Amino acid sequence: MLNTIETDTGTRVGQVMATIRQRISARTLAPGAKLPSIRGLAKMMVVSTSTVVEAYDRLAAEGLILSRRGSGFYVAGHLPPLTLAEIGPKLDRAVDPFWVSRQSLEATEDVLKPGCGWLPASWMPQAELRRSLRHIARADDRVLTDYGTPLGLLPLRHLLSRRMAEHGIEVLPDQIMLTESGTQAIDLLLRLLVEPGDTVLVDDPCYFNFLALLRAHRVKVVGVPYTPGGPDMALFAAALTEHRPRLYITNSALHNPTGATLSPVSAHRILKLADQAGLTIIEDDIFADFELEPAPRLAAFDGFERVIHIGSFSKTLTAAARCGFIAARRDFIERLIDLKIATSFGGNALSAELVLALMKDGTYRKYMNGLRDRLSRAMGETDRRLRALGLKPWIEPRGGMFLWSELPEGLDAADVARRALADNVVLAPGNAFSVSQTATRFLRFNVGQSSDARVFAAVERAMRG
Amino acid sequence: MLNTIETDTGTRVGQVMATIRQRISARTLAPGAKLPSIRGLAKMMVVSTSTVVEAYDRLAAEGLILSRRGSGFYVAGHLPPLTLAEIGPKLDRAVDPFWVSRQSLEATEDVLKPGCGWLPASWMPQAELRRSLRHIARADDRVLTDYGTPLGLLPLRHLLSRRMAEHGIEVLPDQIMLTESGTQAIDLLLRLLVEPGDTVLVDDPCYFNFLALLRAHRVKVVGVPYTPGGPDMALFAAALTEHRPRLYITNSALHNPTGATLSPVSAHRILKLADQAGLTIIEDDIFADFELEPAPRLAAFDGFERVIHIGSFSKTLTAAARCGFIAARRDFIERLIDLKIATSFGGNALSAELVLALMKDGTYRKYMNGLRDRLSRAMGETDRRLRALGLKPWIEPRGGMFLWSELPEGLDAADVARRALADNVVLAPGNAFSVSQTATRFLRFNVGQSSDARVFAAVERAMRG
Repeated sequence: MLNTIETDTGTRVGQVMATIRQRISARTLAPGAKLPSIRGLAKMMVVSTSTVVEAYDRLAAEGLILSRRGSGFYVAGHLPPLTLAEIGPKLDRAVDPFWVSRQSLEATEDVLKPGCGWLPASWMPQAELRRSLRHIARADDRVLTDYGTPLGLLPLRHLLSRRMAEHGIEVLPDQIMLTESGTQAIDLLLRLLVEPGDTVLVDDPCYFNFLALLRAHRVKVVGVPYTPGGPDMALFAAALTEHRPRLYITNSALHNPTGATLSPVSAHRILKLADQAGLTIIEDDIFADFELEPAPRLAAFDGFERVIHIGSFSKTLTAAARCGFIAARRDFIERLIDLKIATSFGGNALSAELVLALMKDGTYRKYMNGLRDRLSRAMGETDRRLRALGLKPWIEPRGGMFLWSELPEGLDAADVARRALADNVVLAPGNAFSVSQTATRFLRFNVGQSSDARVFAAVERAMRG
Repeated sequence: MLNTIETDTGTRVGQVMATIRQRISARTLAPGAKLPSIRGLAKMMVVSTSTVVEAYDRLAAEGLILSRRGSGFYVAGHLPPLTLAEIGPKLDRAVDPFWVSRQSLEATEDVLKPGCGWLPASWMPQAELRRSLRHIARADDRVLTDYGTPLGLLPLRHLLSRRMAEHGIEVLPDQIMLTESGTQAIDLLLRLLVEPGDTVLVDDPCYFNFLALLRAHRVKVVGVPYTPGGPDMALFAAALTEHRPRLYITNSALHNPTGATLSPVSAHRILKLADQAGLTIIEDDIFADFELEPAPRLAAFDGFERVIHIGSFSKTLTAAARCGFIAARRDFIERLIDLKIATSFGGNALSAELVLALMKDGTYRKYMNGLRDRLSRAMGETDRRLRALGLKPWIEPRGGMFLWSELPEGLDAADVARRALADNVVLAPGNAFSVSQTATRFLRFNVGQSSDARVFAAVERAMRG
């Protein structure tokens, strides 16, 4: 009778037992490891503490775990606790475009993440977000429960239109479609613009998730080496002739991962070549508001003939409620509406309300002014600490959070990153960003995630091997 | 000088002017129509009322609009106001799988929507949502700003695992991945499981957005006629032999649009045939909680060998903050994580928090009990009113919100729907749901959206032609 109950995952006690058994067999709870506290596990599994107590008692009766008076429960067995490096499969995973994403997104709270692409929670506008959530809690019924319209919240699209006008980008609200995120914006555009087997041009290096997303769309990816003023123009022109790409995806200002900025002369040259070659360009501008001085935007020069402009608020406001947008020609927008409905039906209307509440009263501008200053100081400090370890930043970026830095000769960034991960530090090795796999000595540092001295201690140890 | 300012959409006054000009040229503001109130437009465009006043004054100076003392501003010209039917292109659009979606999602507040697939805002758990939003406003910093983990909020996955166990579906939390919506869940699965040119089996009729989504994936779609106990089994078996489909997408309980329920004998037969044919099945169970008596679930019989189970909360809690999920075999889930990261990076973590806050304390169960009663009464009432007009419900559904109803002979549902739309009523004509286009005499009524007598008056007028 007892055994029947114990294997019955339909009861709450049974489920707690199954969870612990599974962790032990997956070695996330190694022999000798302390089990989660009764209160902690009860909260996580949304059960009562008495349920957890009963589950632990039964597992102890089975001999799988041991109770130590006054100290809690431990996994039976006498092997030493495993280190992160032994648990796998994380470390076995090849350094592919998903490497940094998965390590960063799956990291527990005790892991340091100078390799990740977002700012620490403590740098984000917490008080403002809390106020906006309370504001939304008082909104009309329809706001709280109805699907969003296909284009998304109109007042937010008006605000975005005005914000883009400040960068010289002229676009009306009905040429803007809100999306779930910047990533979803690019995904929808790829569905619209490319077929499997088409060729897409990217910068080398570029944001690693472009490579992951393009792989999901089964297109051929060609990289053009990126210089401190934009893509290498001779090679860009040669790539157009040789590969006849349908599309080019890039960041004009605060390029990810290098922090470089497109020069006006390169911008004009790109658009001229794109015109001749019938090339469409996606300008991903999600770091726009981190810029200290305005850089040229392709969408501003082009007036949305060949350029599609995208943005998001995941880096500046919150990544927990996602909201991005596409600004494009009206005929593109009309076709994107059908694609958005087919693949996600309505948008996340509450996220758009949250962004609007934060942006409309000037709070956002004030917060961004402070954030830019803070990042600028962190940039200087990280630069100094990296140089002290023998790393060499590629350029001094004009803003943003990324410092693209070269390791001394003889070191491989993937090896260094794997060793740092065993030390609970997630780094971003160069090849995750490079379609030609030629950035083997580079690491991308997020200066907002590099204020802890343990980051540099771990990098130093990882460099020693 | 004045002209320079007026055409400068970079200024706020210029933008208000551009917006009004655009509406007039698109005829959403017809000659003679009253312009939006100054306060209303100021709020919508997030500008001051003095900005709107200045914009209206300048447009009046240009002669484009007229001011009538004490009454507001009007578009110049003496043509009568246009009706919705003349504005287009809505009515010109073919009745394709997007027809119902776009009419429903783009409808203004004065439009009645018995054809739409969700409940009125007043039926949704407003007070509970407001309380949960205030609760989230007090959450930890990381909850408010960090990206969600790839699988999504663990306590919610525990709850989902327990909820499915109540339907006999045994699945551990690490076999569950949260998604942005039920639609995104199916989209991710299609990316994983099918290639362009593959064949996918659907019910005929089925949810129209399955057809839209499958079209976006460029697969061949084969429909199997649906009976009150599930798909016609002889034709299902024949379709497997003839078309060798990779995938079958269906709703086991409260089938959309028919409201029918899979019988246990059909469920077993489907799984046996699927086994022989190597067929994978997506069981879309987003209406699960509307069920009055539990129906068999394919995932419960199959134990996740061939069946993937999906759900969402857009119909029961809110469609403004989307949250869906996929329950599947571990090897599928592992590959879905990469696809989710590539195409959306993190999930919408705040939506998951909101759903958790609503579900964990029993509020949700209580609310759903009341909602099922209310829908049951509305079902009886709508059935009665439709019969009075000469329409014939196909079956008496065992719950849910849909009543699939047949028009008298000689009437075409698409014609009736087009005429009703001119009367500001969105209907859901049968062919939007039918891959073989054989449901020409059916309409899907949402009983929750059919309490207004004007719905039936409009249907009656539209039937008369």
